[in-house]
Amino acid sequence: MKQIEEANQRALSAMNSCEPHLVAIAPAKDVIPGMKENMLLHAGPPIEWDRMCGPMQGAVIGALIFEGMAGDEKEALRLIKNGDIVFEPCHHHQSVGPMAGIISPSMQCFVVEDKNTKRRSFCNLHEGRGKILRFGAYDKEVIDRLKWMNDVLGPVINDALKLGSINLKTLMAEALHMGDECHQRFKASTSLFANRLVVPILESGTDKKTAKEVLDFIITREQTFLNLSMPAMKLTADSAHGIKYSTVVTTMARNGVEFGIRVSGLGDKWFTAPALVPDGLFFPGYGPQDASLDLGDSAIMETCGFGAFAMAAAPAVLSFVGGKASEAVEYTKKMYSITVGESPSYTIPILGFRGLPTGIDILKVLKTGLQPMINTGIAHKLAGIGQIGAGIAKVPLGCFEKALVEYDEKYLR
Amino acid sequence: MKQIEEANQRALSAMNSCEPHLVAIAPAKDVIPGMKENMLLHAGPPIEWDRMCGPMQGAVIGALIFEGMAGDEKEALRLIKNGDIVFEPCHHHQSVGPMAGIISPSMQCFVVEDKNTKRRSFCNLHEGRGKILRFGAYDKEVIDRLKWMNDVLGPVINDALKLGSINLKTLMAEALHMGDECHQRFKASTSLFANRLVVPILESGTDKKTAKEVLDFIITREQTFLNLSMPAMKLTADSAHGIKYSTVVTTMARNGVEFGIRVSGLGDKWFTAPALVPDGLFFPGYGPQDASLDLGDSAIMETCGFGAFAMAAAPAVLSFVGGKASEAVEYTKKMYSITVGESPSYTIPILGFRGLPTGIDILKVLKTGLQPMINTGIAHKLAGIGQIGAGIAKVPLGCFEKALVEYDEKYLR
Repeated sequence: MKQIEEANQRALSAMNSCEPHLVAIAPAKDVIPGMKENMLLHAGPPIEWDRMCGPMQGAVIGALIFEGMAGDEKEALRLIKNGDIVFEPCHHHQSVGPMAGIISPSMQCFVVEDKNTKRRSFCNLHEGRGKILRFGAYDKEVIDRLKWMNDVLGPVINDALKLGSINLKTLMAEALHMGDECHQRFKASTSLFANRLVVPILESGTDKKTAKEVLDFIITREQTFLNLSMPAMKLTADSAHGIKYSTVVTTMARNGVEFGIRVSGLGDKWFTAPALVPDGLFFPGYGPQDASLDLGDSAIMETCGFGAFAMAAAPAVLSFVGGKASEAVEYTKKMYSITVGESPSYTIPILGFRGLPTGIDILKVLKTGLQPMINTGIAHKLAGIGQIGAGIAKVPLGCFEKALVEYDEKYLR
Repeated sequence: MKQIEEANQRALSAMNSCEPHLVAIAPAKDVIPGMKENMLLHAGPPIEWDRMCGPMQGAVIGALIFEGMAGDEKEALRLIKNGDIVFEPCHHHQSVGPMAGIISPSMQCFVVEDKNTKRRSFCNLHEGRGKILRFGAYDKEVIDRLKWMNDVLGPVINDALKLGSINLKTLMAEALHMGDECHQRFKASTSLFANRLVVPILESGTDKKTAKEVLDFIITREQTFLNLSMPAMKLTADSAHGIKYSTVVTTMARNGVEFGIRVSGLGDKWFTAPALVPDGLFFPGYGPQDASLDLGDSAIMETCGFGAFAMAAAPAVLSFVGGKASEAVEYTKKMYSITVGESPSYTIPILGFRGLPTGIDILKVLKTGLQPMINTGIAHKLAGIGQIGAGIAKVPLGCFEKALVEYDEKYLR
């Protein structure tokens, strides 16, 4: 249908025009639209406390302790049971969060801006690996780290950003030529990001010792850039949202119970299906029986052609998510058959600099039966144990089927 | 012949055991064995002043001005004509230099050490692109930069290295997974190197402003790591030198007039043939008629399996040296047929983590007729104009033919 095709080309062109820059770091309550003092944002489609998975519940408790709203787990649970805390998806507030994706009011957040439209998106800062809030851990070590990140890391980087924003589009395009698919592998992007910060941090008023601590924190956390690539792609996907007739997917996100998608021409409605356990490599001593279901807003990367869609650019990630080198190229090639076009800016050298497959089309997914793939970390199903593996998840076809029913009712009757 | 095969396996194993670490930066005369006050080291096999190409002559003049031995070009030429200056190849002094490869007595040099054998190799510091000594430029800007590098850059990094050496083997293995072939493309290795320096530089006594200048100098010069990967591979290649019966190539180097190789079992003798013009992409306004012949010690990278041999790991380099993505993989695959084995440490993700083709065998080269390929910068033939392109050079078969004659006389009669 010509109307659909035109709408989808408009969606593609809007995504390709997005120019995400990191412009600031600021507390959530100061910058995130609609953020409230008693509100916690979470990953994926809407979910209430009782249905949340272990890691998300743990992160909620940790965030309440971090905020000083609760002294311990018991007090946190009391607040929650009293209904004193409002839970809303990050995606309802121009935000994204990896894994549990909890953003609390005082939390320092990356502020990413599209240089063309001045639209903004937000994401919390990156804690590193191991025992961390986004996997549901909330002991003293976790809270102390979050406090240092809030009091030192965020403000120091924000001071550096006052000397100039950082162009995330060119940085990610470069990183893609350096083996990052920007969902599991961020060696290049984090390294380049640290490089970009060195001079402005040393030019700002920050003292030498603090500058060293902040740069060390970033350099030694290879996935730092995860929390920057996500808001960059949130902005990119949102560029395509709200176009009449468009069948392009603008959100893919998981809350640990359900996988949800949203579609450009179908407003803010979520189309959900039960989340699955990713298929992948588990750390020694763990297996699928220990795994949380697929979790986190990080599927925004695949929504825009990164992650599993960009596997051909990042064969080294296979040592982490599993699979053969030849499959890396095949994964990407398959994804071209479910997208409406390609990116002119994000390109893959080994495919002759072909652009990333961009703009997942629900019609193409359902016609081919090819499920979008997602490179993902795997969390333990209990709060606070952390990451137990990594692998490839597939988006349940149910999401697309429900969206098609809605599309049919809205446009085709 | 079993003796040859065994010798070559010993050579391979010696190369694979080398563990190059950057341990210090120091003036050439203090660390390079046999370096003298009136000596200049140059790239490639031995060559006297009169036969040197334009860029090498320019770099010689610049080095004499830098040393304060001459006030200008005229004084420099007088010294040279008087026979006051001794010219010897870098390779005769455990050293390597990119392009003209001029190392003068006061010049600060990277000191790279094999952690297993304590052997050392040396290389000058990286100036950047554009008007630079290694392409034969020697105006005030060039000399001033060299002086700053000598007085500030070198000592500051050396102070940082006192807090710990930098493992170049693991860094290069990582960079190879990040799209560097480590002859033309050093985006990843330079980025990682800069980040390895941040904390030790900020922990050393260096003040914040100087730390900023030094780190900025490195971060903004993408090929900084060229001058580190070269001595790392010089050490690696030398590990295999001097093994009776071995037909493995341990040096490949060009002086801008001749291409020279040396072979493990054939002592320190050079086997030379006329150097060729590389085949590649020229910057706008330049063409093959402007090009210097193939120049520099940087072919030490291919001697150890990097550069053109590692092209499959670095398809993005094709935008610089020319060619199609599919050819990148083919280049590497071909090179396996002229090497005695593979590296267990330096691997290529897209080839299923297969190791780099390592240990060029003169017998295999002559049997297959496949010339080793080299990714290289192209210099203008006149001194001081600088780089005018980049491309792929081939090692003349004449070098291998001459080596075989010698081998025949030494071992097979």
